[in-house]
Amino acid sequence: MQVSFSPADIQAITRPKRVLGATAATVRGLASLTSAAPGDLSFLGNAKYRSEVAGTRASVVLLPSDYEGVPQADQLFLFVDNPSVALAQLCARIEQSLWPRPVPGIHPSASIAPGAQVAATATVGPLCVVEAGAVVGERTHLQAQVFVGHSAVIGEDCWLMPGTILAAECVLKNRVRLQPGAVIGSDGFGYEFTAGRHEKIPQVGNVVVEDDVEIGANSTVDRARFSRTVIGQGTKIDNLVQVAHNVVIGRHCIICAQVGLSGSTTLEDYVVLGGQAATAGHLTVGKGVKAGGRAGIISDIAPGAFVNGNPAMPYMLERRIAVLQQRLPDLFKRFDALEAQVKKSSS
Amino acid sequence: MQVSFSPADIQAITRPKRVLGATAATVRGLASLTSAAPGDLSFLGNAKYRSEVAGTRASVVLLPSDYEGVPQADQLFLFVDNPSVALAQLCARIEQSLWPRPVPGIHPSASIAPGAQVAATATVGPLCVVEAGAVVGERTHLQAQVFVGHSAVIGEDCWLMPGTILAAECVLKNRVRLQPGAVIGSDGFGYEFTAGRHEKIPQVGNVVVEDDVEIGANSTVDRARFSRTVIGQGTKIDNLVQVAHNVVIGRHCIICAQVGLSGSTTLEDYVVLGGQAATAGHLTVGKGVKAGGRAGIISDIAPGAFVNGNPAMPYMLERRIAVLQQRLPDLFKRFDALEAQVKKSSS
Amino acid sequence: MQVSFSPADIQAITRPKRVLGATAATVRGLASLTSAAPGDLSFLGNAKYRSEVAGTRASVVLLPSDYEGVPQADQLFLFVDNPSVALAQLCARIEQSLWPRPVPGIHPSASIAPGAQVAATATVGPLCVVEAGAVVGERTHLQAQVFVGHSAVIGEDCWLMPGTILAAECVLKNRVRLQPGAVIGSDGFGYEFTAGRHEKIPQVGNVVVEDDVEIGANSTVDRARFSRTVIGQGTKIDNLVQVAHNVVIGRHCIICAQVGLSGSTTLEDYVVLGGQAATAGHLTVGKGVKAGGRAGIISDIAPGAFVNGNPAMPYMLERRIAVLQQRLPDLFKRFDALEAQVKKSSS
Repeated sequence: MQVSFSPADIQAITRPKRVLGATAATVRGLASLTSAAPGDLSFLGNAKYRSEVAGTRASVVLLPSDYEGVPQADQLFLFVDNPSVALAQLCARIEQSLWPRPVPGIHPSASIAPGAQVAATATVGPLCVVEAGAVVGERTHLQAQVFVGHSAVIGEDCWLMPGTILAAECVLKNRVRLQPGAVIGSDGFGYEFTAGRHEKIPQVGNVVVEDDVEIGANSTVDRARFSRTVIGQGTKIDNLVQVAHNVVIGRHCIICAQVGLSGSTTLEDYVVLGGQAATAGHLTVGKGVKAGGRAGIISDIAPGAFVNGNPAMPYMLERRIAVLQQRLPDLFKRFDALEAQVKKSSS
Repeated sequence: MQVSFSPADIQAITRPKRVLGATAATVRGLASLTSAAPGDLSFLGNAKYRSEVAGTRASVVLLPSDYEGVPQADQLFLFVDNPSVALAQLCARIEQSLWPRPVPGIHPSASIAPGAQVAATATVGPLCVVEAGAVVGERTHLQAQVFVGHSAVIGEDCWLMPGTILAAECVLKNRVRLQPGAVIGSDGFGYEFTAGRHEKIPQVGNVVVEDDVEIGANSTVDRARFSRTVIGQGTKIDNLVQVAHNVVIGRHCIICAQVGLSGSTTLEDYVVLGGQAATAGHLTVGKGVKAGGRAGIISDIAPGAFVNGNPAMPYMLERRIAVLQQRLPDLFKRFDALEAQVKKSSS
Repeated sequence: MQVSFSPADIQAITRPKRVLGATAATVRGLASLTSAAPGDLSFLGNAKYRSEVAGTRASVVLLPSDYEGVPQADQLFLFVDNPSVALAQLCARIEQSLWPRPVPGIHPSASIAPGAQVAATATVGPLCVVEAGAVVGERTHLQAQVFVGHSAVIGEDCWLMPGTILAAECVLKNRVRLQPGAVIGSDGFGYEFTAGRHEKIPQVGNVVVEDDVEIGANSTVDRARFSRTVIGQGTKIDNLVQVAHNVVIGRHCIICAQVGLSGSTTLEDYVVLGGQAATAGHLTVGKGVKAGGRAGIISDIAPGAFVNGNPAMPYMLERRIAVLQQRLPDLFKRFDALEAQVKKSSS
């Protein structure tokens, strides 16, 4: 990571509402409050770390407007509405230098079937495979060793990182980003049990991934049995997530790592699922539901609910029960004593 | 998905026992009862959705023989023994057009080591690697970017989808299907702790995958420490499943997504494990055991049992305890009251 | 697996402290005690299987020094300090024949960008991609279809198995082994919610993997938001594990399959996490902590603790509560009876 920003550069990018202090340093790195050294920029993104600001050795610190401390010598405080957003602006600038827009064109080692359409502004990197009938849109980037199956359609400004797989007939709309190893369009898991064997039910639907979706490394999204599996606009999916066939995910959801969504389940818009959470199949998780890590959703959840536990229940109830479970040894002891006392007094 | 079937075509494929109504529509899509439009075929595969038949706009509906409603105008009901099987027959026909048998031969971009044997009727797609001593059987299809390690042996009519990896010395018998990104034959996870470090125990066994097995996207099956890890005939494994070294899975098992099987565990025939379930190592799950989603199996399970929960216990007991846990807040309240009353009356 | 050892060969490799019996057999296979046949070598690695030694048909058996039985006819017992270590020595010998050191050089089908540095003693196998600015160290082996991103740095004697991905700017030190499909350096999962959408926070840090680390098949390690995600020296990670951005794992940890580590969590040295365990983010798991399978760690854990359950608690407490939960049906019954009795006697 090559970073070199003057304090003036950083102010130009983050546009602070107020500044305090000054530094002569050039910023050459980003670091957390406790690990920063002179020459680093740091930030307070989570109130939990407020007490660490006073001791940080960072040369520049992004802070929320209501932070009340003062900088040390040769240290610059920049007060902004949201330090995380300000940092993101800075990182976006760094990202442009790290990952410059690739040069359009098809690498000579890529295998493009006759009848595939690759836009002139697209980039197809080394050792990619594009099967017949597939379409790769304007400015889309297949980085390396990507597979695009026959009749798959990719829109504009997508980025398919190394080793990603988009199976036949599946669709990515615009600005979709697939992290390395993600698989879109594997067969749904469907069998009929007849005569002592599981007979495969052909999975002839596809997957449609709407605009601005990101899907994590080695996550898997199965094609529909028929019709389509859908990932709604703006939804973000973390690593190692399983999305079964005919799942419909709404817009702007957040699906954390290792979540499993069973077949034909619907998530409405703005759902948030914590890591390793799971749903049974054929149910609906309402708009804006939040589920804690490892929540096990086995029935419909009403819009706006905050659930936790396995099986998932209202968050406050689950927290209460979790505490009471830890008091079970005490309860059993007290109960035995009370029972003995009652028996004795009634004898 | 290009679908075009006349009502007569559909009857020829599904051979209904009884028909009711008629439609002039050509079927051009498949959809669920609630989402179907005129021109679609739908079906009642799960009694849960029975009430949705009356309102469906599908032109053709596959129904179980005992369904008692009547079709609307321009709607055809086809009564069959098993609507899911009838749909599968239809989908199989569609599948043939979607995924026609590939043309035999080796793509010029594939890397085939000297000494590898590829059957003349096999298809090796673009950018596959086949190492020395490997064998690829009749009509087997390595689709694209597949890896076959040295001395691995693949039987007849297998389909290895893009990005699958079959490591050295491992064996796939006949009609095995690997979904994209599946890894067969990674090293087992075994170390000896000596002198403050974990020393690797070489994993010199292999994996044997029997006939008619299917393994899901990005699932992993480790090679044995020595001897073999076995996936029995007809077993179906979903996505992101972990099978550790020396596991032996019997015939016709169903392993749902994100299950983890620890080392040296045995599943007998016809075991069904729900999503995210897991087993400890060195134990036996008896024939026909069913375990619910996320069951945590930590000891042997007798054949035929239906278990749930973590640790796994008989299903009815687990359901009972789950209900009682939700009544803990009430129990604690009642207990406090009772204890106070007894104290008072005995004072 | 081609094995052929005389009893004398085996004694030369394992150097037993004591021998009992003799065999004329040549050892041609390795097998567990119950499955071994004449011509096989077996071993007692786990006291649980002690009773199986008497009945084994193995020609040679590795045993701990304190084992007290005697061999059958044509059977050789070798008494060693640690039969598992002795077996590992034997397997290492077999491994050398199975996986001989590859011939140095770059396969003609590999795609090496101008400006990448590949050591003369390194091996780059078929269809690998090495981007500009990347460094591949002495005797390192990129087996096949491996991706090395721009400016990534790989040290000496590493082995990247087929389909592994090392993203831009990430670092592997020496003797690192990546199992097939492992992804190092995918983007961390970070977004800011603004104006009804999740805006991506660029992830501009990297991943540093220290000496002697092994990472399992299809596991994922995210690059840091900034600074670095670290996997400490000698740590071993199993398959399908998720390591989020800015996690710092200490030295010589053991992370079993399907574990999920949330962002910015620290594991100190010698931590052991059982399968499917998980941690929340921004917490510290102390040196030498052991957590059982599926433990859910939601707050700091003091060094040396042994925890279990979800949420994780001291092991003995968790076991106690697990037992009491199974007695809840009985407790509710007894409580109802007691309550009725008290009511009756006080009325």
